[in-house]
Amino acid sequence: MRKRHAGSTPAIEPVAGNGLLHRRALLGGGIALAGAVTTGTATRSAAAEPLTNPEWTNVPGTVTPVLQTPSRFEAGVVRILSNPKGEPRTQHARAPLQMLDGTITPNPLHFTILHSGIPDIDPAQHRFIIHGMVKQALEFTVEDLLRYPMVTRKHFVECGGNSAGMFSNVPLQATVQQLHGLVSCAEWTGVPVSTILDEAGIDPKAVWMITEGADDLLVSRSVPLKKAYDDAIIAFYQNGERLMPGNGYPMRLLLPGYEGNMNTKFLRRLYITDQPAMTFYETRNYSPLLPDGKAYRFYFVNEVKSFITKPSFGMAMKGPGYYEISGIAYSGTGSITKVLVSADGGKSWGEAAVEAPVSPKAFTRFRMPWKWDGQPAVITSRAWDDSGAVQPLREDFIKIRGETKKPVKSPYGFPNQHYNSLTAWGIESSGEIRHVYA
Amino acid sequence: MRKRHAGSTPAIEPVAGNGLLHRRALLGGGIALAGAVTTGTATRSAAAEPLTNPEWTNVPGTVTPVLQTPSRFEAGVVRILSNPKGEPRTQHARAPLQMLDGTITPNPLHFTILHSGIPDIDPAQHRFIIHGMVKQALEFTVEDLLRYPMVTRKHFVECGGNSAGMFSNVPLQATVQQLHGLVSCAEWTGVPVSTILDEAGIDPKAVWMITEGADDLLVSRSVPLKKAYDDAIIAFYQNGERLMPGNGYPMRLLLPGYEGNMNTKFLRRLYITDQPAMTFYETRNYSPLLPDGKAYRFYFVNEVKSFITKPSFGMAMKGPGYYEISGIAYSGTGSITKVLVSADGGKSWGEAAVEAPVSPKAFTRFRMPWKWDGQPAVITSRAWDDSGAVQPLREDFIKIRGETKKPVKSPYGFPNQHYNSLTAWGIESSGEIRHVYA
Repeated sequence: MRKRHAGSTPAIEPVAGNGLLHRRALLGGGIALAGAVTTGTATRSAAAEPLTNPEWTNVPGTVTPVLQTPSRFEAGVVRILSNPKGEPRTQHARAPLQMLDGTITPNPLHFTILHSGIPDIDPAQHRFIIHGMVKQALEFTVEDLLRYPMVTRKHFVECGGNSAGMFSNVPLQATVQQLHGLVSCAEWTGVPVSTILDEAGIDPKAVWMITEGADDLLVSRSVPLKKAYDDAIIAFYQNGERLMPGNGYPMRLLLPGYEGNMNTKFLRRLYITDQPAMTFYETRNYSPLLPDGKAYRFYFVNEVKSFITKPSFGMAMKGPGYYEISGIAYSGTGSITKVLVSADGGKSWGEAAVEAPVSPKAFTRFRMPWKWDGQPAVITSRAWDDSGAVQPLREDFIKIRGETKKPVKSPYGFPNQHYNSLTAWGIESSGEIRHVYA
Repeated sequence: MRKRHAGSTPAIEPVAGNGLLHRRALLGGGIALAGAVTTGTATRSAAAEPLTNPEWTNVPGTVTPVLQTPSRFEAGVVRILSNPKGEPRTQHARAPLQMLDGTITPNPLHFTILHSGIPDIDPAQHRFIIHGMVKQALEFTVEDLLRYPMVTRKHFVECGGNSAGMFSNVPLQATVQQLHGLVSCAEWTGVPVSTILDEAGIDPKAVWMITEGADDLLVSRSVPLKKAYDDAIIAFYQNGERLMPGNGYPMRLLLPGYEGNMNTKFLRRLYITDQPAMTFYETRNYSPLLPDGKAYRFYFVNEVKSFITKPSFGMAMKGPGYYEISGIAYSGTGSITKVLVSADGGKSWGEAAVEAPVSPKAFTRFRMPWKWDGQPAVITSRAWDDSGAVQPLREDFIKIRGETKKPVKSPYGFPNQHYNSLTAWGIESSGEIRHVYA
């Protein structure tokens, strides 16, 4: 990096080992002038008019379309499909989180899991009912419901099986998308479930609602009424527009912070009752196993979690100098209050900057300024939320939740659920980035 | 509407004439139980298993795609093009804001204006320079810049010519999209301009930066350095993914709250100087005319504004009963603090609920519960921001800014710029909705 004119601007002190800088370095102004965040990648450019005119400045551009699509140079930014031919089994589509920034997952890239494909639902014919232990069973059309008072909330949705490959006893060499791509975050708009419950009139003895989707399998889950009254939404809009078909068009249940499968898509029924239904998806698929062979009966909440998206496996460092370490933190039990980052595998930690406003049960982007000296380093992150919850260290997590006895071969295996421990990336002097357990 | 069991829950008092209810009615819980927000559209449903199984529950769905697209039943949710054949003149694409909800405009639907089509830019070949009154001119590749510290901010972008049809001396019968579709809101991520200014080292005598885009016309504007230091960003990401081509891929200037044309797309140059360039777009197109024939020399800021998106022209009321009045408020001078809504053409006003968190210079969704009695009504909204600015009443606005002497024939005419007065919708007993000046 060339010499800089630092003047009297303050120096940025390191906050932890291996080059982590105080987050104040991100504020710009005189502090940036001190060179802390200069990448040294700019080249001196002496001419007053140094730019040549590339071909696209010499011809009119293309015609504006009614719907925009990404540049052809971004054709690789797509979801990874587990079942691209639509064989009669589950179809996963994982979001390319390491290629994204900010806190919103664009609708075309929002992760989806469909157990029997995407139903082609005519919203004019779709019906929704609430019945069971109610004063009055009610039936609604979509048009009926769109007249109800709405709320808008930013929330993540995460599959209980996201990050399942992290239960492998040796680290899988896989991207953020492959390891953690079954989570996304959107701004959802819809009708509070409580409004519908109140209109139907719930029997005080009722404790559960059994949800049902209008897909081929009528996917069904048991949801505590307490959660339904708390912050559950029947969502119609996703990042401003009507839901994507794979995300539940024309309407879905949204249970902020509860595992994805419970957020019933294509919602067509709430059956109010005093006991859970013990459906297929809550007894077989989503009951995390413990090392002693027992299993959790219910494990609804996606607990506090974070991972670094940049730099990460699949990228390469371009030599020593300034880099921004950036990632996502979120929690099903509240708002992110703090993210610590380490560049020496957990020996020392510095506090990252988190982008405001921080919304509860939503992606929170964190950023950590870093001067890499070109030596081997292990970067990792750890998040806290306002319920007091903290992301467990791997050693402690594995003790309780277990890991596989043999290496898992594919990041798409399904050895267990609800991994929320740390993810670490090992950076070699060559710039190569590997997945490591720190 | 059928009789309801109201119990001891509080009644919702009206807050203004013609059926406007206190925004507390939106909170749900016991208050919703009082029936305030019941639309009366649900039908009683007595059977325990009353749902028939529509065709899509009897067959497997379609295969998951790598990129999601909207349902075929939403095919009408597209932008309106002013120049669909790409003739050699400006191309406008207006966002369908009346079909959206929440605060985010999805990237495919974000408004765009291109004066010579969309350039097809290879990000590996694109270059950006800063030069002029600097210590050291610098040249960057896109890859260089992507290593710099980023920030994520939600901001609207609005064309100075948005709502131009509102200068017509008689109200145009046109949709929200036709009248106000040249504004959108997204979460942008990029590098603060101040970081780049600091790295180049700005001469203390410099006051302006002249921006230039890499499109066919090299669209160019003069921007005060004060704004550049304040909150300007060089944006690379839009709602999480890289910019849409029509929104400036691979990089654009973002000047929160300043008219769209200044937010130079395809940014390739910042020329630092002590005087404005008086370019085509700041002297001809974007100099609002006053009634006496004089013109504003510069008119950068999009001032505080709001309009109701639902119900609005092009929709029809389905008979008396509960409706939610919903709309968008935003301001280039700060954060929205208050939105008042009237259902009697401005005789009386009630305070709408605004969705939190409210971000500065960003769309703020407001909602007002309303019981329509089936009689003629005129609904309108008015917004305030934390700088103390208030949306001017039409009478006051026209006095200063003027209106046309003859009716404007098309909402796409361009009689003037920077309309930020009120929009009113007249609702007939038949349910028809007309555009009116209240």
